[in-house]
Amino acid sequence: MGHKYQTEHYIQYYETDQMGCCHHSNYIRFFEEARSRFFDDTAMPYAEVEKGGILSPVVAAEMEFKMPCRYSDTVVIEAELISYSGVRFSFSYRIFNKETGDICCTGTTKHCFIDGTGKVISLKKKDPALHDIMTALAGE
Amino acid sequence: MGHKYQTEHYIQYYETDQMGCCHHSNYIRFFEEARSRFFDDTAMPYAEVEKGGILSPVVAAEMEFKMPCRYSDTVVIEAELISYSGVRFSFSYRIFNKETGDICCTGTTKHCFIDGTGKVISLKKKDPALHDIMTALAGE
Amino acid sequence: MGHKYQTEHYIQYYETDQMGCCHHSNYIRFFEEARSRFFDDTAMPYAEVEKGGILSPVVAAEMEFKMPCRYSDTVVIEAELISYSGVRFSFSYRIFNKETGDICCTGTTKHCFIDGTGKVISLKKKDPALHDIMTALAGE
Amino acid sequence: MGHKYQTEHYIQYYETDQMGCCHHSNYIRFFEEARSRFFDDTAMPYAEVEKGGILSPVVAAEMEFKMPCRYSDTVVIEAELISYSGVRFSFSYRIFNKETGDICCTGTTKHCFIDGTGKVISLKKKDPALHDIMTALAGE
Repeated sequence: MGHKYQTEHYIQYYETDQMGCCHHSNYIRFFEEARSRFFDDTAMPYAEVEKGGILSPVVAAEMEFKMPCRYSDTVVIEAELISYSGVRFSFSYRIFNKETGDICCTGTTKHCFIDGTGKVISLKKKDPALHDIMTALAGE
Repeated sequence: MGHKYQTEHYIQYYETDQMGCCHHSNYIRFFEEARSRFFDDTAMPYAEVEKGGILSPVVAAEMEFKMPCRYSDTVVIEAELISYSGVRFSFSYRIFNKETGDICCTGTTKHCFIDGTGKVISLKKKDPALHDIMTALAGE
Repeated sequence: MGHKYQTEHYIQYYETDQMGCCHHSNYIRFFEEARSRFFDDTAMPYAEVEKGGILSPVVAAEMEFKMPCRYSDTVVIEAELISYSGVRFSFSYRIFNKETGDICCTGTTKHCFIDGTGKVISLKKKDPALHDIMTALAGE
Repeated sequence: MGHKYQTEHYIQYYETDQMGCCHHSNYIRFFEEARSRFFDDTAMPYAEVEKGGILSPVVAAEMEFKMPCRYSDTVVIEAELISYSGVRFSFSYRIFNKETGDICCTGTTKHCFIDGTGKVISLKKKDPALHDIMTALAGE
């Protein structure tokens, strides 16, 4: 089991669509919100990592939309670091309605590390201290 | 002075642009976030008002962009109900960096009330109870 | 092979992020753009289908991000209807840079049909004429 | 009269809200779309200007929302460069429904030029060639 982090999100009016619920394209953004907060809560906030010249793009994502959520609902976004290889890492997510507990969306994202020129790098080689943090977070 | 409400917003990575700061188009969304929370905090949450068949579109907006805010900053969005006529109402907003206090953006929005067919209505006539709440909020 | 449709999209400044490229969350929106145009180009434009009381939510999506695209690039979004069962259907997508031909993103989405109450329906039973169109498009 | 440019935009499903029309926050993005294309159509495409180290943030915006536009409508966005001082410039916009001609939104944006450090610069001093292009575009 990897490290988990939960954050809350209030569904905004601007996130609804004419079907009357939160548009499906927002969930991949909610994944990012939780991932961002996940790292803020560790010794490697992503804003700092990026200032150090290491970027971490998303290379793949998948999601299942289970139940709609609606304007003014509060959802809980849970992110878990499920794998880390020194070069790549993956997160899984669960988004559920805070009031009812209904699962709205589940999914995963896969990531790598690149330098400022876009070249894929090994975090293990490039920044052993961050590598140790990632290893610990993935191995909890 | 009208009723004021403050809410916080964490600047998301997906809200940045290649200039390295929060894209200016997000601020009008932040205004809506504060307005939504403003009404949630009163006896007339907007989600309930809309279920009752009264909609409240934005008819005008203006904003000044003062200072950029950046990924992982927390901003405070303050909304104040500055006028209400029974038919129309206006809000003013101040968005400032929670840590530094720097003003990022100020602005106003103007609103009316319409029914489900899009016809402008007088809230005073259509729903005197909501009218009284609005009058009180505007007159604080 | 199912019916294919290509549409173009100019990468907007507001779609960039501070990594200097189109934010990954936009691609699921680009999928929707192509899907929307795909149906506009047939005898069942989605706006009309929805007015008839049939909605078609996305139930799953997956995508791989291959190469970044950047502000002012034009990308081609290709959507292909790859399966249709009478109840569910799937699309696959390829997004490539119009100038270089580089693939930026590939993916799939899965969909069902629901009525206005959110209940899953069989298009085959609910609207045989649309069912025939879908069958033809999927079977090309 | 300044130089004018018109571009078209198909209202996407993801741009709708639960009121059933294009969410008002999209219009400031449509302004940017037209402004971007306006400059692409001149000798100073904005992507190139930015690569040269000159950025042009929005410092103020205002808009009036006249009539809703809806999913699958095509709107025309017209941008006109209405003033240029060597340091600042302004655009006005009209967004109208291509089919009906109904005006959906009008507005203006104000801009300055900054260098990579965020300092406001005089284009007239920094890049006389671009200054001459801007002067000609504003003076048409």
